[in-house]
Amino acid sequence: MAGVIRLEPVETGLRFVADITGRTVVLDSTEGARDANPVQALLASIAACTAMDVVEILRKKRQVITAYEVRMSGERAEEHPRRFVSLEFVHRLTGRAIQRKAAEEALRLAHEKYCSVSATLRPDVPARHVLEIVEG
Amino acid sequence: MAGVIRLEPVETGLRFVADITGRTVVLDSTEGARDANPVQALLASIAACTAMDVVEILRKKRQVITAYEVRMSGERAEEHPRRFVSLEFVHRLTGRAIQRKAAEEALRLAHEKYCSVSATLRPDVPARHVLEIVEG
Repeated sequence: MAGVIRLEPVETGLRFVADITGRTVVLDSTEGARDANPVQALLASIAACTAMDVVEILRKKRQVITAYEVRMSGERAEEHPRRFVSLEFVHRLTGRAIQRKAAEEALRLAHEKYCSVSATLRPDVPARHVLEIVEG
Repeated sequence: MAGVIRLEPVETGLRFVADITGRTVVLDSTEGARDANPVQALLASIAACTAMDVVEILRKKRQVITAYEVRMSGERAEEHPRRFVSLEFVHRLTGRAIQRKAAEEALRLAHEKYCSVSATLRPDVPARHVLEIVEG
């Protein structure tokens, strides 16, 4: 996998636009910016990577998902480089008669077996994944 | 740090929109999507995190940067979870009379001391950072 990031605008900002095989992501550490900074994007990438695998597994099992949100939080070290020291993700799956067992198994497979982002993280950063199922 | 990601649209896509304290990042694994998928966003986040620190350090040293791009590539394992097994970043700094020693020291500090994203990654994933300086 390859791509390029470029500083834009170059004079004052801390904003990089990335192009990765035709796809784009903007990372911005400028104060008051609208786009996520790299650490925020990392947290969202972990959540999304796991959740996408859950969605794919549950679709294969013909489970009907009508909404899916993940509340995520990460605790960071006080000292530089201020890395994440713990992570928590609360997966709220809304759907019609979603089987809890199927969803739990999907979540377990997603974060233990499939999520490439999680697997690239330090093994000593505890990541807790909690499942909530809502009928609707 | 906290936020939420939501699946949009919910029926067929693999697209999550993240809101982290008012900032946004979109992650999309749908085929042909315009936004980066989580693994691509991770790669860009590592590059941007490092490059932002380089920019901040060099601005403090009154170095004049007129362009900054990072070509990035990551090799992934063949087997699930297909994590990154090696990373390479080529930092191309364009500016007016940028001091190589100052830039090298900034890059070293950025990826060894300051980058929170890199520090959250597995220590056994080799990450090579190369510096190119262009006058202009």
